[in-house]
Parts: sequence; C-alpha cells; structure tokens
Amino acid sequence: MNVGGVAYRAISWSGNIDGCLQWIDQCRLPHHFEIRESRDAEAVARAIETMEVRGAPAIGAMAAFGLALAFMTDQARFEEYWLPRFRRTRPTAVNLFHACDAMQAIALNEVTDQIMLDAACAYADTEVMRCKTMGEHLAEVLAIGERRIQTHCNAGWLATVDWGTALSGIYHLARAGESPSVLADETRPRLQGAKLTAWELSQEGILCNIQADGAAAWMMAQGKVDAVVVGADRIAANGDVANKIGTYMLALAAREHGIPFYVAAPESTFDLVCSSGKDIPIEERGESEVLQVEGINRRGEMDSVRITVKGVGANNPAFDVTPNHLITAIISEKGPWKP
Amino acid sequence: MNVGGVAYRAISWSGNIDGCLQWIDQCRLPHHFEIRESRDAEAVARAIETMEVRGAPAIGAMAAFGLALAFMTDQARFEEYWLPRFRRTRPTAVNLFHACDAMQAIALNEVTDQIMLDAACAYADTEVMRCKTMGEHLAEVLAIGERRIQTHCNAGWLATVDWGTALSGIYHLARAGESPSVLADETRPRLQGAKLTAWELSQEGILCNIQADGAAAWMMAQGKVDAVVVGADRIAANGDVANKIGTYMLALAAREHGIPFYVAAPESTFDLVCSSGKDIPIEERGESEVLQVEGINRRGEMDSVRITVKGVGANNPAFDVTPNHLITAIISEKGPWKP
Repeated sequence: MNVGGVAYRAISWSGNIDGCLQWIDQCRLPHHFEIRESRDAEAVARAIETMEVRGAPAIGAMAAFGLALAFMTDQARFEEYWLPRFRRTRPTAVNLFHACDAMQAIALNEVTDQIMLDAACAYADTEVMRCKTMGEHLAEVLAIGERRIQTHCNAGWLATVDWGTALSGIYHLARAGESPSVLADETRPRLQGAKLTAWELSQEGILCNIQADGAAAWMMAQGKVDAVVVGADRIAANGDVANKIGTYMLALAAREHGIPFYVAAPESTFDLVCSSGKDIPIEERGESEVLQVEGINRRGEMDSVRITVKGVGANNPAFDVTPNHLITAIISEKGPWKP
Repeated sequence: MNVGGVAYRAISWSGNIDGCLQWIDQCRLPHHFEIRESRDAEAVARAIETMEVRGAPAIGAMAAFGLALAFMTDQARFEEYWLPRFRRTRPTAVNLFHACDAMQAIALNEVTDQIMLDAACAYADTEVMRCKTMGEHLAEVLAIGERRIQTHCNAGWLATVDWGTALSGIYHLARAGESPSVLADETRPRLQGAKLTAWELSQEGILCNIQADGAAAWMMAQGKVDAVVVGADRIAANGDVANKIGTYMLALAAREHGIPFYVAAPESTFDLVCSSGKDIPIEERGESEVLQVEGINRRGEMDSVRITVKGVGANNPAFDVTPNHLITAIISEKGPWKP
C-alpha cells in the first residue's frame, strides 16, 4: 500500500539471491519511516521478538525469509538450531508455526539456496493474494449503513506484508469509491491502533479517529458504529479467536448493541490442532510495556514516559480469546464463515 | 488517608477565616506531591476545570470552598457571577451542582463570611463521613472470594476529600486485617488508575497492579476477579450510572462472567431530576488528552509524548452511562440498593 504516494510492502526481498531482506521498522512508526535491511537470520528473529515486525501474517512471512537466510548462511544448523530459534520468537500467532513447517518441509528435499529463497518469496506473495481476495469478500460484507467501522490494534498491510486483513476490506471499499470512516482503538499497551492503523489509513486518505480502549461500547450505545472488524492471531477449529488484548471486550459490546462483529484472517491463521480457544497459548509480555508509553516528545524526539510510581506492577496479557458465539462471521480468502 | 505515613485530605481549609484553601494537585501526581494554596475563587474554579481536583465528591467540596471564598472576597457578584462561574466548570459530576445549590441557599440568608466558610467545611466533613460509612457497608459486601477487586479510574480519597468511594471499601477491608488485592485499569486517556489509584493504594500498603483498559474481560474469563467496584459521577433516578469512560464495557464483561458489579457513591452523587441516564450530560473533552500521554521521562522530568501522527483526530467522551440492569448494587452511606 501507499506511503507518500509510493507503494510499499511491510516485508520484501530486494534484488537477486545476493540481495537482502527489507522490512519497515514498526517500532519507529509513525514518527519515523525507516526500512531495515539484513542478510542475518538472527537479526530477522530479533525483529520478530522486538516487534519491529508484528501482525500474524507478517510474522509468518518474516520467519519464512529468516529461515531462507538461515539456510543460505548456516545450512548445517538449519534443522536443529534455526527452526527452533524461529519457533521460539512469539507464541500466539500460529502463522509463525505454519511458515516454519512449510520451510522445514521444503528443506527436507535436495534444495538449493535459490529454491529456499523462492519458497519464502512465494509464501509472502501467497499471503498478499489471500489478503487481497479476503478484502474483496470483506468489502461486500461491510457495504452496510454509513460504513463507520470500529477496529482494534493494527490489522492492516503492516501486519500482513500488503493489503491487511481487517483493513483490506476498508481499502477495497475506499478504492471502490465508498467513504468508509474508521474508529481505531488506540490499543494499549503498544498503541498499534494509534501508531500504525491511524498512520496507514491517513497515508491512503481514509478518515480515522483514535479513541481510548474503553470508549467503544459508549460509541456503539450512541449509534455511531455500523460494524466491528478485527484481525486474528490464531483461530481454533471451533472458531474461537485469539487476537490483541481488548478484542473480547469489543465483541461483548458489539453483541449488546446488535452490531456485526467480523474477524478477517487468511487460512494461515487457522489452527485446527486447537479444538477451542482453551488450547491457544496466550503470550504474557513484560510489564514495562504497560508502565511506559512511547511517543514523540515536545522536542520532536522519540521518547518514553513512565505513567505510574516505581514499585507498582502491571499485568500484560498480549492477547485474549473471543468465543465463537460472539462472532458474526470469520472472513478468509474463501469468503465468510459463521463459526 | 496516608501519604508517607502522614494523614492528608485531598482538600482542606488551613487556619482560621484568614487562612486559605489547600488542595493536592492531582495533575502532578504520582510523580510530584504538591499542595496548592489559595484564597482566590477564580484559582479554585480553574483547578476544577484543569482537573487539579477531580472526582465527583471532591469537585463538590472544592466548589463549596470556592464559593465561600467568592463570598468572602467578592460578595457583590456572588449570585450573578460566581455561582454560574462554578456551575460551568464541569458538566457531568452532579455533586458540583448540589454544592452550588447548597451554598446558594445559605447565602440567601443574612450570613457572615464565617458562616459561609463554616458551611463549606461542613459540606466537606459531611462528604468524608458519608464516604467512611459507605466504605463500611462496601467492605461487608466485598468480603467474598479472595478479595481480588477490579476497579476503574480513581474512586479513592483523592476523588472525595478522604476515604474514597470504591476504594473506601478496600481501605476498610485492609484496616480490618484482610488482604485485598486490586486490579486497576490504567484508565485512558488521563490515566487516573495508573497515576492516582495505584499511588493511593501503594501509600496505604495495598497490593495493586495496573493493566490496559482492554484487559479486564480476559482477567475475568481466567477467574482472576472476584468483584468490580467503581465510583460514579452522576446516578439517575432509575439507577443508571454515569462514570469514567470504560466503565460500561467493564459492566458488560462482569455480567458475562457472573461477577458482581458494584457502584459506590454518596447521596450527593444521585440526581433524581434525571429520570434515566439519557438525561445525564456527558462531557466531551479535547482530543489532546488522547493524542498525548503524560508521565516522567528518562531524565526524571514530567513530560508528554504524542502517540500518533499529526492530522489524526481523536474522540474523547470523558464518561459513559452504565444501565441499571448491569449493576448488582449501588452502595451509598445508607447501604446497598439494587437499582
């Protein structure tokens, strides 16, 4: 999608086999737009851990490229070191494990560096096509009311290489000449709604207002929301959905007000090994993400401020599980499914 | 309650009639504990507007003292200038209007400065006694499970002169030898949970963890919450409750998990003129509160950071309305009432 009118992907391979992996550093957005480059598999793994790249489909693509680089630079340790290294980077997004499994299966054959790189590129391209098709389906579903769409966290192109999941439907609506407007929860603790969703949408010229995470139910009660759309980090066989913390409260509020609640995710986010949400591991992250807030200070520098006194602790579950009965439909590249 | 082992009130009159009003500046907490002093009614009105003093019962007491000062220093304009001046400071907390009405009624008689000051002191003392008694009732109600209490915003002694509303019950539990633990929503946008509630409780030696405002439903789903207690800014005749934005989502989550949801408020927070929540005016505040976050930077200075790009707007409804059917009981100084 567009940044300053130029098309970008969140992750892409630059050049031929001697080229490098490029990714947009999402920890610096929206204040700085910086592209990282590397041929170092360890740097790619760290970029997932530190959330320079986040969003379930993007994590999967990043791992595919990272494993291609691991194969190209350290083939002897591919199986026993690099596969477990990447599988440990984040626990909840199942796309990571799907990507690791896919790259492992390819490496079991007699393969060249070029084949592994092509496989990673194909993995990323497939995700992009899935997100594009999913967005077409979602745009049809969202063609209701005044198209005032509530979303949470970032389920846009940054989270998925290109197009996005939830936001893909909104981009398709906009390109079809509709005028969707987006209410984006700021999405504490890491503020992906304020930092990434609002930035993505403004770069595409789509109206977006942010709000505190506690505000959505009140906006719904006032009749200011036509639909809710979120992404997903893992979807169990029964349709329970793990997504960014706060999604579950949003689903409860949507049900109370008879507002449709859609989850948009490619098939790579489904995990049929998990029979229900109870089987999905939920990442607990460090309390500093809650205790500190990052942004731009008055001097225009990136900085962080501590919001409470020393000695006060914080809970920081990174995800929650929305039970299937609260979900109007899950939209994948195959179309809508009522869990 | 205690700060560093010394007892304080959020607002108090210091000395005799020639003394001054003192209040703790809540915009500086928890990073700086600073007491403001003034005999200037305009400074008192501004302290309400800028939220140096916030919390419905504290706003009422502050207005009572402010009007006493207005009478003492500018009696000629008491009725036509100062009463409307104070009534305009904040729209939602009804305690403000109750306090203005009370001071107006007293000033209708032949009164002296001393009588007006005594009336303001009596107003504040009455609120303190109400909060103390309310806390005793609430502590009885909360004597359940492991006493893991979820709260939102700040409904402590800072919000009420002394003792608090929701937190009064927790202070009473602790002083009775129980070990309550508190989950405090950080409460965006102004972070009263992280800044005031966590600080108040830590000064009293009560365990408190903060969390993102989207996390409570997931904590409940995991069985980690025994009860929810919040304060109120205005309670309609039918028991609908206006309180800090985010309260309504918390009430929906509590109902879903069969967890009792209590509102603690003195009778001065009831507004029988409002037949339901639809009649309660909800304050919309400036978007900068959402777009900026205040805290302490790495150099130990108070600072603020902007969390999104310029050009992105924000919704900022300061309160929401929780309908009566979601409320287990409203606890006042008279005891519990099921609306």
